[in-house]
Amino acid sequence: MNPTPEKNAPQIGIIMGSQSDLKVMDAASDILEQLGIPFEITIVSAHRTPHRMFEYAENARKKGLKVIIAGAGGAAHLPGMVAALTTLPVIGVPVKSSNSIDGWDSILSILQMPNGVPVATVALNGAGNAGLLAAQILGTTNAVIADALEKYRTIQREKVMRSVEQLHRGDIDVD
Amino acid sequence: MNPTPEKNAPQIGIIMGSQSDLKVMDAASDILEQLGIPFEITIVSAHRTPHRMFEYAENARKKGLKVIIAGAGGAAHLPGMVAALTTLPVIGVPVKSSNSIDGWDSILSILQMPNGVPVATVALNGAGNAGLLAAQILGTTNAVIADALEKYRTIQREKVMRSVEQLHRGDIDVD
Amino acid sequence: MNPTPEKNAPQIGIIMGSQSDLKVMDAASDILEQLGIPFEITIVSAHRTPHRMFEYAENARKKGLKVIIAGAGGAAHLPGMVAALTTLPVIGVPVKSSNSIDGWDSILSILQMPNGVPVATVALNGAGNAGLLAAQILGTTNAVIADALEKYRTIQREKVMRSVEQLHRGDIDVD
Amino acid sequence: MNPTPEKNAPQIGIIMGSQSDLKVMDAASDILEQLGIPFEITIVSAHRTPHRMFEYAENARKKGLKVIIAGAGGAAHLPGMVAALTTLPVIGVPVKSSNSIDGWDSILSILQMPNGVPVATVALNGAGNAGLLAAQILGTTNAVIADALEKYRTIQREKVMRSVEQLHRGDIDVD
Amino acid sequence: MNPTPEKNAPQIGIIMGSQSDLKVMDAASDILEQLGIPFEITIVSAHRTPHRMFEYAENARKKGLKVIIAGAGGAAHLPGMVAALTTLPVIGVPVKSSNSIDGWDSILSILQMPNGVPVATVALNGAGNAGLLAAQILGTTNAVIADALEKYRTIQREKVMRSVEQLHRGDIDVD
Amino acid sequence: MNPTPEKNAPQIGIIMGSQSDLKVMDAASDILEQLGIPFEITIVSAHRTPHRMFEYAENARKKGLKVIIAGAGGAAHLPGMVAALTTLPVIGVPVKSSNSIDGWDSILSILQMPNGVPVATVALNGAGNAGLLAAQILGTTNAVIADALEKYRTIQREKVMRSVEQLHRGDIDVD
Amino acid sequence: MNPTPEKNAPQIGIIMGSQSDLKVMDAASDILEQLGIPFEITIVSAHRTPHRMFEYAENARKKGLKVIIAGAGGAAHLPGMVAALTTLPVIGVPVKSSNSIDGWDSILSILQMPNGVPVATVALNGAGNAGLLAAQILGTTNAVIADALEKYRTIQREKVMRSVEQLHRGDIDVD
Amino acid sequence: MNPTPEKNAPQIGIIMGSQSDLKVMDAASDILEQLGIPFEITIVSAHRTPHRMFEYAENARKKGLKVIIAGAGGAAHLPGMVAALTTLPVIGVPVKSSNSIDGWDSILSILQMPNGVPVATVALNGAGNAGLLAAQILGTTNAVIADALEKYRTIQREKVMRSVEQLHRGDIDVD
Repeated sequence: MNPTPEKNAPQIGIIMGSQSDLKVMDAASDILEQLGIPFEITIVSAHRTPHRMFEYAENARKKGLKVIIAGAGGAAHLPGMVAALTTLPVIGVPVKSSNSIDGWDSILSILQMPNGVPVATVALNGAGNAGLLAAQILGTTNAVIADALEKYRTIQREKVMRSVEQLHRGDIDVD
Repeated sequence: MNPTPEKNAPQIGIIMGSQSDLKVMDAASDILEQLGIPFEITIVSAHRTPHRMFEYAENARKKGLKVIIAGAGGAAHLPGMVAALTTLPVIGVPVKSSNSIDGWDSILSILQMPNGVPVATVALNGAGNAGLLAAQILGTTNAVIADALEKYRTIQREKVMRSVEQLHRGDIDVD
Repeated sequence: MNPTPEKNAPQIGIIMGSQSDLKVMDAASDILEQLGIPFEITIVSAHRTPHRMFEYAENARKKGLKVIIAGAGGAAHLPGMVAALTTLPVIGVPVKSSNSIDGWDSILSILQMPNGVPVATVALNGAGNAGLLAAQILGTTNAVIADALEKYRTIQREKVMRSVEQLHRGDIDVD
Repeated sequence: MNPTPEKNAPQIGIIMGSQSDLKVMDAASDILEQLGIPFEITIVSAHRTPHRMFEYAENARKKGLKVIIAGAGGAAHLPGMVAALTTLPVIGVPVKSSNSIDGWDSILSILQMPNGVPVATVALNGAGNAGLLAAQILGTTNAVIADALEKYRTIQREKVMRSVEQLHRGDIDVD
Repeated sequence: MNPTPEKNAPQIGIIMGSQSDLKVMDAASDILEQLGIPFEITIVSAHRTPHRMFEYAENARKKGLKVIIAGAGGAAHLPGMVAALTTLPVIGVPVKSSNSIDGWDSILSILQMPNGVPVATVALNGAGNAGLLAAQILGTTNAVIADALEKYRTIQREKVMRSVEQLHRGDIDVD
Repeated sequence: MNPTPEKNAPQIGIIMGSQSDLKVMDAASDILEQLGIPFEITIVSAHRTPHRMFEYAENARKKGLKVIIAGAGGAAHLPGMVAALTTLPVIGVPVKSSNSIDGWDSILSILQMPNGVPVATVALNGAGNAGLLAAQILGTTNAVIADALEKYRTIQREKVMRSVEQLHRGDIDVD
Repeated sequence: MNPTPEKNAPQIGIIMGSQSDLKVMDAASDILEQLGIPFEITIVSAHRTPHRMFEYAENARKKGLKVIIAGAGGAAHLPGMVAALTTLPVIGVPVKSSNSIDGWDSILSILQMPNGVPVATVALNGAGNAGLLAAQILGTTNAVIADALEKYRTIQREKVMRSVEQLHRGDIDVD
Repeated sequence: MNPTPEKNAPQIGIIMGSQSDLKVMDAASDILEQLGIPFEITIVSAHRTPHRMFEYAENARKKGLKVIIAGAGGAAHLPGMVAALTTLPVIGVPVKSSNSIDGWDSILSILQMPNGVPVATVALNGAGNAGLLAAQILGTTNAVIADALEKYRTIQREKVMRSVEQLHRGDIDVD
């Protein structure tokens, strides 16, 4: 079901501020793998490796990336700074990291970008949705991905319907 | 500077929950006009016209839209419900409307979507950035739009530099 | 003590956005069972099964439901969307689900409905109170239920008085 | 269009903690007047007239009221205390009064009722919706009111559609 | 060290909304015991035993109480309602109970009382400080209690100084 | 109606962190004047006059004060520091000053005192209630003040009843 | 009173994200002028001029700056990114700009820096305090500045004492 | 690598309000030890040892301290009061202590200092960054410390790069 059989070059770049964000951000790679979209994943710290961040963001379009998914927690500057250095769409994932105040800092420092430099922010720890959103962006011009997304929706719907049946049969154990 | 001279069919749909959101959402149409991207704009209320919302969302891809920008305030269900009814990317604009608690309800009810149905949320009242993000999405495969976005960035940068010069000359009146 | 001996058709519909909400929402069915009020319970996801939600809400009155109790968490659109699709009273239960920010998103996206489409919101995870409120609504015209509710109050009061006695006797172990 | 032509006894009691709440709470009486539902309106302060509150709540069902709408701001105890003293449904309207912290105190002290004593809370300053919710409760057994509510929805929908037309004609002045 | 040797009638009344508040409120009785001030302790629920609350508050001064300490959580109406029914000073203890949103509801519904009916609010779960404050109130006219409070302060200060010495000796194990 | 005719020495000390707090704190002196309780009022800044604060707090009991009312805004340290330097009851008034974030900083930095040093906190800008609370504290042993407080309550109640009559006569203009 | 008469090279760099921040940030230059400390002031936007920010931060120490004061609002990345690019102390001023949610985003995105890259954050809109803090940093090794700061404190204290006298004379008009 | 080989007198004073803060504040001493900067560490409680706090703050400059790091939680007055009593730079560490409401009280009561008395606030529990900031302040005039800080940055950067390599090799276990 690989929607881009001719080239395996990554189309999505997944970056995160710290190794500890990986357990959240892994949901983005999972979904892209499920959808057969080639991606790359690495660690880019806005504060500890600022030059690396500059290079990553400024080279992203040249090397063929179409969307960047950036996750960070606390005073999370990675998504917004990358967005300032490229005109590719940047999806920000606020991570509820150990140094975050219940996620509020992560959300606000990613979401509240000034005019001129948007970040497409998803829910707290919503890396899976970031992966889906990246796929939806590719799906605006790639019919194979668009189809894969429709199928994914169908699977979700069917999963709900199976829960419905279980509940009606009394097969769900609440405790 | 129209990047899609051959067809004038709208590529972006801008919708909002209420006529009163127009003064915020107009910034999205402004930016798309500046970038020469054809769009349509209308009012779709999740709560007062739910069937209209269903039809709008389900027909969006068929009629050629590539991205939907949806703005709403308070318990803002429009962006998330539209996102549930299409696999096009949906950009949510939390509006600080008169019935909103300083915008917190608008932000949280748009941003905090469950797994499987992302909304690309921008800053509170950030309709201009929603327009730019929509353009960036088109720009992933449309070089003319990508170029227009680079130019827009240059203009922003030059504007800052003019402020710098004014400040250094002592030409800015603080009060 | 069944207040509607002649018909066992459900008068209350309990719905929730996800199977994982069941452990919270079960308190609503418990209270209705205690009060002898027939109800139905199922899963209806606003975002994963939007058509099912439409049908459920639009058929609710026809099939004899008098009140709908809807629980959801995060960007919780189910109660408000159902309320937009029926003129039956809809009671919203904000669920502190795993993807919620301490329940604030659940509360605000259920409570802050725009003019014209009310949702009767109860406390965070307050499904038991949703069940009682539904009974109180039936009790406005059903004397048997009204009596059952008075008895329930008496039982609550007596429970407090037993705690009082235990405390005065020194029978409560604090730790 | 009076749905209860045979009796003019008030079916809804609207109470508020202070005269200054009247400018918010008046929206509840407006909607009930529009729907032709007889109501009474008065001031009952939980903190300055606690005995009056007790009497009001305890006599409400006897004198024929079916629903109580109670609005208050700050540490808003009126809705919850009235709910403790009657088994009629109580609708709470959090008022953003001058002594409130942006409405958060009003909302939380009305919404977060303990198990056993529900308050049907509506949006901050949402007195109009409180009136509609009261009508919906009556409408569960009163077909005339149920019809009036459907008509009210139609009018709302048509109002949106007129805005749509105005916007498409370019007749809306944003500034 | 009993400051009121001639009479053992309780001078402070400690009440709480629920048996589950006892593990927090017990710190108030502890401190009063340490200071040798006679008190009574019981459960009074604003919502489940409203008449009991009325009687308790209205009889408090007559039966010799000088200060009431009232603890409650969630939509915590007990301290404010008691304060409305007596002119004795009422100290409110916001309890972070299981049905509270991180204590914010408890704090705001106790603290934000309207003009005319004050509640002396202490920190979240601050029942020990409520006990001290009650003692300080008695200490305004009772020199024995005033002295006991000075001694308590000295003990606190000495405890800090012992920590200082331990830290300087390297005797504190951080982990 | 002066409850302490024999001595006019101030019994209550009202202090505030800045001259700009006076427009809020004046409500405390108003109420004490109404109740005929002698008080003193001055400015004591924790941060700009720390030695003055030390002297004020440490001399308060000696010079005959029974209660201190302290108002401050932002990082409001005055009430808590004064409470650390005297065992008199200290009533804290969180002021919504121009450098405060909607009053949240004022409230939390006054309310959340550590174990051992209570501050009796009243509502945001609740200086009038601080005055009443101070009177209630005196009223625990002074029957004249206790009577004056009962009369004050009666006046409040009668004021509400006059509003009730006005509303029933239709004499209140909402707009 | 210039503490560094021999060289007029700026020792403090004041930067801000936007021209609109100038009306807040000007308080920093005011205080440095009062204290006779040479400084430079300019606009550096993290998002619109990221390369300028890199150059500014990386050259700061070389060109003789000792402290950088950086103000920004909303998703305020300037202070933290500058701090990532220099080991000079960076003082962050959260600005309550028009695109900020009551300043919460500005505060959290400046304050909540990860381990390894501190920003010395001052109060919302606290640019004057940022100027003082910069002077205090210079004053750790510059006795002239240390003296100037002591004098500044004396002036503040005297200002409070004049308010005290005015209040005691009854010369302050509250309204 | 001791930057001040000639004298071992402490240059940084680390203080905290309570022994229980030590497990957070220890990160400050760790970093100063790593950087070879002599410091002292002790417990100073604003509320339980106010005189000790006064003496500590007023003697700090005389005894050779250059920077004070002060950590406290809840209504955290220590950093601000110390800052009021010295013109040395004071770095405030908001501690998420057991009596704190998720750290919000700690942050706001340290950060929101009034004009004239700054506190350099770092992130919640950010004692390590407080140590670094203190070193940066010394590093403005001490080249050895400035070099040590650059080396520390290099080590941080290299640590990120090692994570990058691990991730690329697939050596990071997410779960």
